[in-house]
Amino acid sequence: MDGDEQRRHRDTVWKVHGPAQAILVGDALFALANEVLLELGTVEAGRATRRLTTASRKLIDGQAQDISFEHRERVTVEECLKMEGNKTGALLACAVSIGAVLGGADDRTADTLEAYGHHLGLAFQAVDDLLGIWGDPDATGKQTWSDLRQRKKSLPVVAALAAGGAASERLGELLSADAKSNEFDSFSEEEFATRAALIEEAGGREWTAQEARRQHAVAIEALDGVDMPPQVRAQLTALADFVVVRKR
Amino acid sequence: MDGDEQRRHRDTVWKVHGPAQAILVGDALFALANEVLLELGTVEAGRATRRLTTASRKLIDGQAQDISFEHRERVTVEECLKMEGNKTGALLACAVSIGAVLGGADDRTADTLEAYGHHLGLAFQAVDDLLGIWGDPDATGKQTWSDLRQRKKSLPVVAALAAGGAASERLGELLSADAKSNEFDSFSEEEFATRAALIEEAGGREWTAQEARRQHAVAIEALDGVDMPPQVRAQLTALADFVVVRKR
Repeated sequence: MDGDEQRRHRDTVWKVHGPAQAILVGDALFALANEVLLELGTVEAGRATRRLTTASRKLIDGQAQDISFEHRERVTVEECLKMEGNKTGALLACAVSIGAVLGGADDRTADTLEAYGHHLGLAFQAVDDLLGIWGDPDATGKQTWSDLRQRKKSLPVVAALAAGGAASERLGELLSADAKSNEFDSFSEEEFATRAALIEEAGGREWTAQEARRQHAVAIEALDGVDMPPQVRAQLTALADFVVVRKR
Repeated sequence: MDGDEQRRHRDTVWKVHGPAQAILVGDALFALANEVLLELGTVEAGRATRRLTTASRKLIDGQAQDISFEHRERVTVEECLKMEGNKTGALLACAVSIGAVLGGADDRTADTLEAYGHHLGLAFQAVDDLLGIWGDPDATGKQTWSDLRQRKKSLPVVAALAAGGAASERLGELLSADAKSNEFDSFSEEEFATRAALIEEAGGREWTAQEARRQHAVAIEALDGVDMPPQVRAQLTALADFVVVRKR
């Protein structure tokens, strides 16, 4: 198993209890989420649970793509955005909509709330990709250059590779060599710092920051599709703002 | 990760695609099962899905117990039966009942079918525990002494340890020493054969075979609780018979 051994300064479940029991904890929470919703026994509960299971399937699809990207030399920006839409967009879309469905919202309202959540998820993921490379370990609780250590083809990396120019080409050569290197696991801080600097120089960092702001704007716009009290809109807007400025 | 690398003569998913993607395949099938049921959008679909999620939670509970037993020196027969009821009983109970629920069966009928499935699952698991030690590798596609290699506290083992007598005591001493041994992973065929012979001598093999027959009988008896066409009863009886005589 690979993956971070700590999240937010605490040992992960798999680190403490082993991978097998950690997998089971995840499965149990997944089963419980559906079970708790279905306990209501209403038609709305069935509709909400179906949205949850559809979102779960997309999440799984996105996660599988994410892992497969780690073994591929090149991933397009479009592929990366699609993966992040599945992995994170679907999660936030579902989180925003199913409460409304349980409260009796029709499908159009629920779909509109899902659109807000989907774009909010893409903004969140863009920020996450920035933190995965340039985040402060004291704030994130992850290692420095965490995503680079895991060979993640996250947005800053694929955007930098797609940008063209000297830094982009040098980055491409380095990552190609890394993919075949037996010494990758013993790379020094400096070697990761060099790669991060090239990603930034090629424009991957700025492109991703812009993408976060763009998705944030689209999410806020989507709220126009639903009638809601001003106070609720203000809360959803504040939530979207929080996602884009978070440091961890 | 531990676990068999082959099942029924084919490489397992985790062996071919790696543990991470294998976990995701399992999660995807779990999500899809609920999604397909809920697609119907009926009250019955919600009831069936709820039974499926409850069964899933029990399965997970049983699997977690099973893993925890591998690290414990002693497990009672009662604990083992409870674990197998969760792990396998709940699975077959659900498999037998949810089709009936979707077809409009009331809760009493569904519960009765679940009782049949639950005891059938316990019979299946008892046979599985026998095959896990004494199964023919050519038939099962698993290694010889598969469950002993994984330190599984399966029914034959716990029954033998609970039986008392010279063979039972000698077995207990050996397994206690094994738990602390650094050489366990390089044990020869003969060392596992010695343990299997002691389990048999202490009566663990025969007790488990009797348990399979007992659960088979209780399962068949449970069918009396539901009105059903003779042909359906004959098929459910044949299925129960198959479970107890299978060689793989």
